[in-house]
Amino acid sequence: MDVTIAEAGEFGLISRIVSRLGSGENTLIGPGDDAAMVRASDGRVVASTDVLVEGRHFRRDWCGPRDVGHRAAGANLADIAAMGAVPTALLVALCVPAGLDIDWAEGLADGLSAEAGLVGATVVGGDTSSSPTLTVAVTALGDLRGLEPVRRGGAHPGDVVALCGRIGYAAAGLTVLSRGFRTPKLLVEAYRRPVIPYTAGPQAARLGATAMIDVSDGLLQDLGHIATASRVGIDVRRDAFDLPDQMRDAANALGVDPYLWLLAGGEDHPLAATFPPGVALPPEWRVIGAVQDGDGVTVDGKPWTGPLGWDHFR
Amino acid sequence: MDVTIAEAGEFGLISRIVSRLGSGENTLIGPGDDAAMVRASDGRVVASTDVLVEGRHFRRDWCGPRDVGHRAAGANLADIAAMGAVPTALLVALCVPAGLDIDWAEGLADGLSAEAGLVGATVVGGDTSSSPTLTVAVTALGDLRGLEPVRRGGAHPGDVVALCGRIGYAAAGLTVLSRGFRTPKLLVEAYRRPVIPYTAGPQAARLGATAMIDVSDGLLQDLGHIATASRVGIDVRRDAFDLPDQMRDAANALGVDPYLWLLAGGEDHPLAATFPPGVALPPEWRVIGAVQDGDGVTVDGKPWTGPLGWDHFR
Repeated sequence: MDVTIAEAGEFGLISRIVSRLGSGENTLIGPGDDAAMVRASDGRVVASTDVLVEGRHFRRDWCGPRDVGHRAAGANLADIAAMGAVPTALLVALCVPAGLDIDWAEGLADGLSAEAGLVGATVVGGDTSSSPTLTVAVTALGDLRGLEPVRRGGAHPGDVVALCGRIGYAAAGLTVLSRGFRTPKLLVEAYRRPVIPYTAGPQAARLGATAMIDVSDGLLQDLGHIATASRVGIDVRRDAFDLPDQMRDAANALGVDPYLWLLAGGEDHPLAATFPPGVALPPEWRVIGAVQDGDGVTVDGKPWTGPLGWDHFR
Repeated sequence: MDVTIAEAGEFGLISRIVSRLGSGENTLIGPGDDAAMVRASDGRVVASTDVLVEGRHFRRDWCGPRDVGHRAAGANLADIAAMGAVPTALLVALCVPAGLDIDWAEGLADGLSAEAGLVGATVVGGDTSSSPTLTVAVTALGDLRGLEPVRRGGAHPGDVVALCGRIGYAAAGLTVLSRGFRTPKLLVEAYRRPVIPYTAGPQAARLGATAMIDVSDGLLQDLGHIATASRVGIDVRRDAFDLPDQMRDAANALGVDPYLWLLAGGEDHPLAATFPPGVALPPEWRVIGAVQDGDGVTVDGKPWTGPLGWDHFR
């Protein structure tokens, strides 16, 4: 039987959500008190907040509630990984229309919890409210376990730029969906549930990464943040990227330049990092360019004239 | 000259907000990276999230942007204090209509920052998005400084129930505003900017409080959470409350029972705590009742038949 959130009431909603959340080794106090308490083993906590708004970041006809949960958790957990830290906990502010089916909220909780579980983190608290606009704001906490954080401002000329994780898949999937198609599944599923290389964050920190960022808004735009913060230039080589067959086929069918997806598409959440020359990188890190004197980001040595990425107000 | 958020763009908005935030002794990395880093001195971090939605938690014609900032920060900081902890940092997810004047967002940032500054905390990060519904989701972090957290489930029969801070003022102010009045100023201002006894949280923890809660949804409802979690009953004495003249006058003028404001009104964020009998309480803590065997909350020994508090979906 379908039950709306208004029928269940605030405490009914909260109790249904909480019953679906697991517990974790870093959770000292979970949901149900004024605040949660989470282990911060080295006396520091890393924290990041990201918000998803229906119609802006997701559409319910394109993504099921579990997908939205995975994406909302992933966007935040990736930020924690991009500092070199291990995520420990999520807090979730959920704003929903009172007439929404409570199954949707339960599916969202399952997705959030499952994505967090991939890295041993748990949902430890949150808040709910009715709102005309379905909104999911997530805060992730993380633990550096004694490592130094990898920031955006440490890249030096001569460093290599490397990428770990998929790129362009989610943007391609979004284009496919927005043109009314549901396949290729590889791309559509990549948009619905990004596959994020969380453990590559602490790995890069241990390898001596000089700068790192979660690529969420578009590779060139996000590398631009490293370039600006580090006061360097970055050149990216197009031939460093593999174009999977399904992406090439979809690009041809849709009349899109696939390098727009690779260079300016967001939401796959790969990690981009710079490393001193000579660091032996594990195979999951692919060198895609170099840090140089100057400023801004170039592609094959030339200015990029296409879109850089995504502005959430334009 | 008025500038909308759409004109400033996402990064313009973020840079204007960030320029208004201070830095704090607990902030190891502030805004501008993938995540913030905050001191968690005793290896644990307390964290809580609260969200305010326009039309549900505030109206722009009743509260200026600074007021909304104070209230959004306060609601979260009070949760941290209610664990016995000292707040260290805030993260803010801000969803705003693209046509909103950027001055509004700057005012909000000022209010958030000023309220956090009352306890030495700072805004260390966040996210922004456009949304048809103005929404402010805040996460607060806090530090117990080695104290044990005070939870909801530790009250024992024989304990006294005590309250620190104003009660009923904000609810009275809200009634005044909703009837179209703007005075008495004491009540209206209490609604716009609650005066929250943050330091009473750690104070209560040091005094040996057995349970504590931030009274945000209504005193009887929130004491009910302590009663349920502690498997006890709580009796509240009406004669323990002072009725300020302005509240009595407003109640008479508006035809409202002022005890509805005191017992079921939220948003003043006083702290309610239970203490073992015999603890010498400082004068800012007023004894308002007793913990007893049984369950639920009674008023002067009788069941309360009025509203308990606020459900955000009804």
